[in-house]
Amino acid sequence: MEHSTIAANGTSFHLVRHGTGKELLLLHGWPEFWLTWEPVMTRLAPRHALIAPDLRGFGASGKPAGPWGAEDHAADMLALLDVLDIAHIGIIGHDVGGAVMQVLARRAAGRIAGLFFFDFVYPGIGRRMGEPDRLNEIWYQSFHQMEWAAALIGRSRAACGTYIGHFLRHWAHRKEAFDDVLEAFIDNFLLPGNLEGGFAYYRAAHAGRVAMMEGNSPSLPPIAIPTAVRWAAHDVLFPTAWTDRLGETFTNLDLSILPAVGHFPHREDPDRSAAEIAAFFARIGWY
Amino acid sequence: MEHSTIAANGTSFHLVRHGTGKELLLLHGWPEFWLTWEPVMTRLAPRHALIAPDLRGFGASGKPAGPWGAEDHAADMLALLDVLDIAHIGIIGHDVGGAVMQVLARRAAGRIAGLFFFDFVYPGIGRRMGEPDRLNEIWYQSFHQMEWAAALIGRSRAACGTYIGHFLRHWAHRKEAFDDVLEAFIDNFLLPGNLEGGFAYYRAAHAGRVAMMEGNSPSLPPIAIPTAVRWAAHDVLFPTAWTDRLGETFTNLDLSILPAVGHFPHREDPDRSAAEIAAFFARIGWY
Repeated sequence: MEHSTIAANGTSFHLVRHGTGKELLLLHGWPEFWLTWEPVMTRLAPRHALIAPDLRGFGASGKPAGPWGAEDHAADMLALLDVLDIAHIGIIGHDVGGAVMQVLARRAAGRIAGLFFFDFVYPGIGRRMGEPDRLNEIWYQSFHQMEWAAALIGRSRAACGTYIGHFLRHWAHRKEAFDDVLEAFIDNFLLPGNLEGGFAYYRAAHAGRVAMMEGNSPSLPPIAIPTAVRWAAHDVLFPTAWTDRLGETFTNLDLSILPAVGHFPHREDPDRSAAEIAAFFARIGWY
Repeated sequence: MEHSTIAANGTSFHLVRHGTGKELLLLHGWPEFWLTWEPVMTRLAPRHALIAPDLRGFGASGKPAGPWGAEDHAADMLALLDVLDIAHIGIIGHDVGGAVMQVLARRAAGRIAGLFFFDFVYPGIGRRMGEPDRLNEIWYQSFHQMEWAAALIGRSRAACGTYIGHFLRHWAHRKEAFDDVLEAFIDNFLLPGNLEGGFAYYRAAHAGRVAMMEGNSPSLPPIAIPTAVRWAAHDVLFPTAWTDRLGETFTNLDLSILPAVGHFPHREDPDRSAAEIAAFFARIGWY
């Protein structure tokens, strides 16, 4: 794996490249960074040139000065692709990365060969996101907006481990999925600005999430780029039933449910995840 | 002020007594304990015998082994009154204490001279409690149910101070209301079991709150005991508009809005609060 630091859009981005072939960009979620993709990168390296950046605020990339949402991350990624002189690419992502992909698809459709999503938020989830029986799952989206949240969680390695470790286990169906990298994840989120950097996304996303939960999401044009969604069968955060309106947002949609995994298919079942990614991009001629 | 420890309902209760006259029981909320009532106790002591216990889980009272909700606290309080040989009493409370009072009113109406509430949860709040624009206010009710929450907050004095201090300031309109006792509050919540003891309420209350937010609260008989509600004009947690259905629960209701205070009228404006309490109990003949 080749690590590099690239200046783009007014900050620096740490990214990891691996493999050869048609390029694929991998966009992580919270609480993650590039390393979450390592198992699928290893498996896809013989077929694709993989590019896994740390989003701004995360890992070893620059930190935002304030809220930094999907629109901001999308501008970052387009600037990064310009610097890397990449005209055309396939994109893989989930969670925060999946939100960024929807912006990229509308802003730069001509540059995107295909979109491959694991579980993520899209407007069709709507009011269901905030229903009373979901409150014990979504509270963290509010907590992350408290001014003192990062200081509280970052006060000690034990506190950070309790917090980050909770989500990596709770959201996973295969609870051991992150055991081999848990210490690296804790180290990473303890780096200066990384807890704040992740929480910056929730500050930026709040108004849009409230609008979605109130049934007031803005009407956006559908996305016609070839799209695969592999939704986990056991994601406690994003129930499988919420896939029912994906066709409204993605008009060229290949949807199926991934068995025996939770919120992190790429770490819970990297063999199956890599195979699904490879098969989708082969089918659409991007290989 | 006279401190004592009383055995009742299988545990021990710390309570503070002050003043002479007809007895009034004062039931605190979260994150509070008996000390929150001290300013109004001082002012009411010439007129009433005031009894301010620490609820089970709080202060210097015994700790519950698991979830401990309004029904459980009400059983505690009735047992305490039995031990104290008090047949008839007026009750004052807010927040958690206000939930306990509703159970007491239905379980022991004949023992209660009158009910005096500051802001609290009652069924008529209904779906409004969980609407999307309220999520950044109510997240803590979910966070308190996480198994690791007390360990995280209690890891250091600084962490506990950040957390408890946040709510005492954020929910107040007069932000300095707890400045003179903040260190005592932090000391108190750092005592073994007190963070867990407070969070035990939210574990017990969750199912009922979800039912309320889903519009499925059970139909309960109205409460005919003389009732005063003094709702704060500036409670960010419980907006004034939510008083509109109090008449459905309390058929003998004296409602008014307290100006220039937030969630803690008893600490934010103890002069006015004590005067309102004294006037109500005088009006109903309990003096």
